[in-house]
Amino acid sequence: MDKELSSIHYDKYLQLNKILDAQKLRSVEFDKPAHDEMLFIIVHQVYELWFKEIIHDLNSVMDLFGEEVVQEKNIGIAISRLDRIAKIQKILVDQIEIIETLTPLDFLDFRNYLLPASGFQSFQFRQLEVSLGLKRDNRISYTQCAYSGVFSQKEQDILSKLEENDSMLELVEKWLERIPFLNFDATGSKEGFDFVGAYKNSVANMLELEEKAINNADYIGDAEKHLRLKMLGETNTYFSSIFNEEEHLKKIKDGELKLSYKATMSALLINLYRDEPILRQPYMFLQKLIDIDELLTSWRNRHAQMVLRTLGKKIGTGGSSGYDYLKTTADKHRIFYDLHNISTLLIPRSHLPVLPDDLKEKLNFNFTQK
Amino acid sequence: MDKELSSIHYDKYLQLNKILDAQKLRSVEFDKPAHDEMLFIIVHQVYELWFKEIIHDLNSVMDLFGEEVVQEKNIGIAISRLDRIAKIQKILVDQIEIIETLTPLDFLDFRNYLLPASGFQSFQFRQLEVSLGLKRDNRISYTQCAYSGVFSQKEQDILSKLEENDSMLELVEKWLERIPFLNFDATGSKEGFDFVGAYKNSVANMLELEEKAINNADYIGDAEKHLRLKMLGETNTYFSSIFNEEEHLKKIKDGELKLSYKATMSALLINLYRDEPILRQPYMFLQKLIDIDELLTSWRNRHAQMVLRTLGKKIGTGGSSGYDYLKTTADKHRIFYDLHNISTLLIPRSHLPVLPDDLKEKLNFNFTQK
Amino acid sequence: MDKELSSIHYDKYLQLNKILDAQKLRSVEFDKPAHDEMLFIIVHQVYELWFKEIIHDLNSVMDLFGEEVVQEKNIGIAISRLDRIAKIQKILVDQIEIIETLTPLDFLDFRNYLLPASGFQSFQFRQLEVSLGLKRDNRISYTQCAYSGVFSQKEQDILSKLEENDSMLELVEKWLERIPFLNFDATGSKEGFDFVGAYKNSVANMLELEEKAINNADYIGDAEKHLRLKMLGETNTYFSSIFNEEEHLKKIKDGELKLSYKATMSALLINLYRDEPILRQPYMFLQKLIDIDELLTSWRNRHAQMVLRTLGKKIGTGGSSGYDYLKTTADKHRIFYDLHNISTLLIPRSHLPVLPDDLKEKLNFNFTQK
Amino acid sequence: MDKELSSIHYDKYLQLNKILDAQKLRSVEFDKPAHDEMLFIIVHQVYELWFKEIIHDLNSVMDLFGEEVVQEKNIGIAISRLDRIAKIQKILVDQIEIIETLTPLDFLDFRNYLLPASGFQSFQFRQLEVSLGLKRDNRISYTQCAYSGVFSQKEQDILSKLEENDSMLELVEKWLERIPFLNFDATGSKEGFDFVGAYKNSVANMLELEEKAINNADYIGDAEKHLRLKMLGETNTYFSSIFNEEEHLKKIKDGELKLSYKATMSALLINLYRDEPILRQPYMFLQKLIDIDELLTSWRNRHAQMVLRTLGKKIGTGGSSGYDYLKTTADKHRIFYDLHNISTLLIPRSHLPVLPDDLKEKLNFNFTQK
Repeated sequence: MDKELSSIHYDKYLQLNKILDAQKLRSVEFDKPAHDEMLFIIVHQVYELWFKEIIHDLNSVMDLFGEEVVQEKNIGIAISRLDRIAKIQKILVDQIEIIETLTPLDFLDFRNYLLPASGFQSFQFRQLEVSLGLKRDNRISYTQCAYSGVFSQKEQDILSKLEENDSMLELVEKWLERIPFLNFDATGSKEGFDFVGAYKNSVANMLELEEKAINNADYIGDAEKHLRLKMLGETNTYFSSIFNEEEHLKKIKDGELKLSYKATMSALLINLYRDEPILRQPYMFLQKLIDIDELLTSWRNRHAQMVLRTLGKKIGTGGSSGYDYLKTTADKHRIFYDLHNISTLLIPRSHLPVLPDDLKEKLNFNFTQK
Repeated sequence: MDKELSSIHYDKYLQLNKILDAQKLRSVEFDKPAHDEMLFIIVHQVYELWFKEIIHDLNSVMDLFGEEVVQEKNIGIAISRLDRIAKIQKILVDQIEIIETLTPLDFLDFRNYLLPASGFQSFQFRQLEVSLGLKRDNRISYTQCAYSGVFSQKEQDILSKLEENDSMLELVEKWLERIPFLNFDATGSKEGFDFVGAYKNSVANMLELEEKAINNADYIGDAEKHLRLKMLGETNTYFSSIFNEEEHLKKIKDGELKLSYKATMSALLINLYRDEPILRQPYMFLQKLIDIDELLTSWRNRHAQMVLRTLGKKIGTGGSSGYDYLKTTADKHRIFYDLHNISTLLIPRSHLPVLPDDLKEKLNFNFTQK
Repeated sequence: MDKELSSIHYDKYLQLNKILDAQKLRSVEFDKPAHDEMLFIIVHQVYELWFKEIIHDLNSVMDLFGEEVVQEKNIGIAISRLDRIAKIQKILVDQIEIIETLTPLDFLDFRNYLLPASGFQSFQFRQLEVSLGLKRDNRISYTQCAYSGVFSQKEQDILSKLEENDSMLELVEKWLERIPFLNFDATGSKEGFDFVGAYKNSVANMLELEEKAINNADYIGDAEKHLRLKMLGETNTYFSSIFNEEEHLKKIKDGELKLSYKATMSALLINLYRDEPILRQPYMFLQKLIDIDELLTSWRNRHAQMVLRTLGKKIGTGGSSGYDYLKTTADKHRIFYDLHNISTLLIPRSHLPVLPDDLKEKLNFNFTQK
Repeated sequence: MDKELSSIHYDKYLQLNKILDAQKLRSVEFDKPAHDEMLFIIVHQVYELWFKEIIHDLNSVMDLFGEEVVQEKNIGIAISRLDRIAKIQKILVDQIEIIETLTPLDFLDFRNYLLPASGFQSFQFRQLEVSLGLKRDNRISYTQCAYSGVFSQKEQDILSKLEENDSMLELVEKWLERIPFLNFDATGSKEGFDFVGAYKNSVANMLELEEKAINNADYIGDAEKHLRLKMLGETNTYFSSIFNEEEHLKKIKDGELKLSYKATMSALLINLYRDEPILRQPYMFLQKLIDIDELLTSWRNRHAQMVLRTLGKKIGTGGSSGYDYLKTTADKHRIFYDLHNISTLLIPRSHLPVLPDDLKEKLNFNFTQK
């Protein structure tokens, strides 16, 4: 039986008694009230609230992808939730403009009271990074201090457990590996279809065309032409290495790649044949992961700039080296790099291997209009 | 045989000789150079360029939906292109902030030289409105002048022809009417399924629950309770009218609704069962239309405010009454109002009629993972 | 003596134990967990946090302007804080996109548990409106219920007291009235300068020029020409009424205007001679007030659209009529309308009355470079 | 005598015949129409239009600062125009989202027809960089090719001449050097005031306080405490070097700094005493320069990400190495780095040297209210 429906007031529902009573200015406590400390507190609380929502959505997507078979229906739901995360991230980046209204001089009015509190102590942000797939070993350390100096024992335990479990990146990898279309004859196509093989041929054709294009580019001088042909040669080498599974494995070991060979080929196939109705949702799902990664990078870049502007080269309240450290993480803490990388592997539609008819039909679905 | 590939330079490809040579300041011509007239010209040129792109994308979507049967594949493409339109619109709204750096006083330095040029003379914007589905008769006139005073004969002819052809709104209506699921037994479900009938029952249940909720809301006093029950009664009446096809027809005649009864029921069904894989793309397509309509409204609102700020209550250069006129169009020139309205018709998932199993299967598709 | 400086941790400083423990989902309480209720709670909490910051900044500006003489220095500070408010408001508008990821259908999963909680019960938002200058009598009522049904006795008392005190609008009015330049001979100019008189003459000249421009506009037909001359006549009438203090008083009584005649003339003067160094900051201050008003309007418009999208024509959880009500407030709850209106009164710089030299010098300041 | 006022039509005024007739798709020319090439052309044309406006505004500011004495009035105007540039830049960054709707696969449909056209051939963007102050020698080369391979002889001549003239950075430096307050007794203060000397003392006090704060931070362990004290030591060294003019000169030679010692001290003083009315506008002017620099960095970062997403590691159409190159420029092509850096030099207001009364009065101005 349903619990009897009671009525509720806005304030109580939102627990505003807690929310609006959580701004205690240290500068006031030390009898040197600094007007702008309020902004500093509130902006960080807003970030933490949004982090909570992002984690809530991300966890739900990870649950859906943690199932043995990912329901088609759930891919749609996952896309919606990742899209929400991306929209929140966009606001997180944009609202740095609000923080920047806190000028360096005003910040100095209360900065000393905050030591050694620091954004690096945000447990939720760390949790988010680990859940997405950033491993402790790939993390650039900003001081010699490990987790132990930053998080409570309970928090450390949670993070350790998260690292042991599958991250979003790993769940995606497993899902990509399970997708049947790579090995098309396994799906019952009479003609069979060796995707990787067919694709290799197409790439060879395309590179030939690019070479011709450069040779025909009479606008550019011989020196530049030479340079570009050399670069094309490098692309060629790059492709060769891509289609070489052993090479791929080696790159994973060296930390250059993360996704398995099989998962990478699946992601490539989805990108190439994304217009086929059944691949549409998987394609959009991968796109959303790239969006999230890109927005995380934007946030790191923007955050680094804001720190440079507010603190210059001063050390952060938490002891970090500030700007330089943050700047580096923008690139190095990227998580779905392999998916971005898929673009390198694409070739024009006109060169795409043609799918056998019975396969093409399998990738369509029935939505007959009268 | 392919035309031989030649090389091209950035400037020439973009025809920058034309683009960057199209800013002739009237204030300079009249020997009273006004620095800010450059901004005024450029910002309008940028708008016109984006309008061209929007029309290019919209036309392509209309072509896809003009076919007798809309290919599933093409719904995906349509979504991408509508999404691009929405993203452009967002920039069109945001960049009003740039125009507002042209202060009222600076504008007066050259405003007199512009008479009677006016944004109302933008042929592309008119073309866009008509293509989406804004009819001449639903347009709020800003002066007594008809098209004849504003557009060339050739432009008038194009607009007239556009009005005769199916607009985006009409193409969507036809597509919705063709969708098979409304009449489920036509799709071969053994059990059959009368969507509209089943839905009516569910609605009745839900209204009962809402009534109970209000009666239980002891937080609110008797006066408010009375008021709310009265409002609920109105909702009830509203739903009754919705399920009455004749009533619907009458509302179309009165200009309150635009989509046919059948198309409306299809849109409702898509919204309710959007999680079923086959309905996912149609749902997203409808969402994108709402996005575009909403952004058009945002643009009109923001534009009106900008005019109020720059001109106050002054008449526009084209003779329009300015702010008040623009303000009114924001609401009245809405095109996909019926789709927004679907929200009024929704009920909680827990009250949704359950689909027969064989139907449910039809709405899924095969993307078997190993 | 200083309190001894102690160290503090990020979590404790931000009181995250409160902030992150304030999301109790009603849908969970009623054993029907709805994933998206988390978003609904968090987004409202974020709004309330930002409202707190806005009020914090606004109050500090009101304190500065509540002093008998507003220090020049404090105008600069006021501009910075109003600018921050505007930047926050921009985020408040933009993040409506996040709310819109809560689809109508998902909202229905938990909407019934929220009755009768409603955004109309936000005390802080009401406080903000009243502080800016929105009077109870000018407020459009959304139900027959007064404050009493919405706020606690303590909150009602605070609002009543706020209404009695000077609002931001009234403080600005008093400051504008105290500014000395209107009555320039009071400032010791030998030549004297009657601003209002000189300005009247200039306006007459300008209107003559506009008339000539219309008559010369041979592009437009006689019908339109006639119409535009008629409109110009109306502008003429408008200006006449502006310079008539009694007429102004009447308009205030009728609720069409709010600022006193004297304050209006001061605001006009600041806008016209804003390039003079001493008037630069006052000008920017007035601009920021307009920004804030405009962004409040944008927020109301956007909010109304979001409600239409999410609820359609359904009544709000708080019993409001929803979209239609919200839509109306966008225009009617505007506070600094008189400042927007200044634009109507501006004339081109080339027609501006020339300032006497000794006055012009007074408006400059000494920042001699070697 | 005035040229007789004539009337003009919207289309003709904006020269839409040129603007809307400048989109010739290469893919159409080669009989392989690619829908998305239109977007590619238009988005670049929009960028070029905005570049033209930015250059128009920047040049006007450079003219104002090129005068022997910068009029106070003109600082206000300069701020407005730089603010406009910043607002345009914000749109330039945001609209990258539009470009990203051009997916990698769609781009490949026409990319081959564009060789070797490339954004690196944008003359206006190069002009903008050079005008701001980016020197050829500080530019990171993306290929071995010099200007000669990219721009016409006429364009090269313009760029060379721009490099010879004062850039915005150099104009700002000269203006900062001319500002009188550094050497306060030169301004006639009876007491005299040695800014740099007084400031050195204050810094010493502050560093002592920070050291104490770290030692008191009993929350952190000994290891971290040690680390932070070491970092503080580095800050100390940094400050010492700053106040050493010879050291400064050396850093300029090494390319670490750009602004002269005197200009840097002036910028520091403006930042520290920005609340004094006369320094308000100069402070805001410096802030706007930082805004522009920061937005340029944001643009470079975002642009790099977009290229990574669209092309992966493929070489650019112009032969650039793409992502890696673009990424590096974000940091290295920063122009007003010295101004960002000022933050490192700031100390809390409570430690600021107190200004002599007669000086303080000089920094105020007369805006007496009755």
